[in-house]
Amino acid sequence: MMLCMSRWSPNARGRLERAAYDLFVERGYEETTVADIARRAGLTERTFFRHYADKREVFFGGAAVLQEELLRAVDAVSANVSTFEAVRISVEAIAHLMRDRRVLARERQRLVLAHADLQERELIKRATLTAALTDALKQRGVPEPAASLAADMGIAVFYIGFVRWLDDPAEREFVDIVREGFDHIKAVASGC
Amino acid sequence: MMLCMSRWSPNARGRLERAAYDLFVERGYEETTVADIARRAGLTERTFFRHYADKREVFFGGAAVLQEELLRAVDAVSANVSTFEAVRISVEAIAHLMRDRRVLARERQRLVLAHADLQERELIKRATLTAALTDALKQRGVPEPAASLAADMGIAVFYIGFVRWLDDPAEREFVDIVREGFDHIKAVASGC
Repeated sequence: MMLCMSRWSPNARGRLERAAYDLFVERGYEETTVADIARRAGLTERTFFRHYADKREVFFGGAAVLQEELLRAVDAVSANVSTFEAVRISVEAIAHLMRDRRVLARERQRLVLAHADLQERELIKRATLTAALTDALKQRGVPEPAASLAADMGIAVFYIGFVRWLDDPAEREFVDIVREGFDHIKAVASGC
Repeated sequence: MMLCMSRWSPNARGRLERAAYDLFVERGYEETTVADIARRAGLTERTFFRHYADKREVFFGGAAVLQEELLRAVDAVSANVSTFEAVRISVEAIAHLMRDRRVLARERQRLVLAHADLQERELIKRATLTAALTDALKQRGVPEPAASLAADMGIAVFYIGFVRWLDDPAEREFVDIVREGFDHIKAVASGC
């Protein structure tokens, strides 16, 4: 049992992620190798590569989880709910996932902003998430271009809210900032 | 006078762009060199590099023009116009610039979709355009996060409309598709 637990490394992803951020901050992103990260986490390189394709993916491992939760949330919204509300409910669901991660998210954001290749990958992940939400809305029967426009709007609220959440002077929860973002969209679109 | 015209290559950008697209279609993007493009346009490599930093930039040379026109348009909208209308008017202004370019835009889109590095550069240009519009709205006195959200929405309408315009069965003008996009945003945000 102990062997099994050690072999399968419970919460290996979390340990690798934490070790990677610590090393990125201590030594710099370029100077940190996958071997360094695995060693710090008390795991092997092989374990690292079971969880992440490369060093850069440590920053984006959460994207797949977000996408899965987003699609699950859209699917759970009943059919008679408006497109706007379906998007709002689903984006709030993924904002909930970030609770208690503000400190790590701040470190991550500082590193992403400092490296053009990470910013590019971030834009790609955002476009992928938007495309997934568009498809989910089409599945609900939302026609184009409303599906694309509503998905783009929802993911914009998420990303713009994310940056505000990191530095929010009142330390409000991410989900509250997202809710406020949707209210702003409503206000702007109604001509305020 | 003739010498001067020849030296400064009137419409060199347009000739280089047309030559580049022709060669990309004939030989493939990878197989075409800057020297090939310059030769086909009847110009020198030096002239090419006066207009474009590298081969890839031929696809994105228009981005600076779009951004300039977008900011000029925002600046021209009177102060009492709502944020939504200011964004709509400005995005329609840049949609106008694409008139008569549908065939070239289709070729461009096919090439961009076929190359991951071009798609990445496209996402970066989109993010840059969004940031420029956000700043212009802040200059108008629009507070955050409304400025970021409205800018993101406007640029989404532009890009989603662009793809629809390329394949529009009715061959409607880009600007009409953009106008319709803003109507869809209004409808979605009001809970339809």
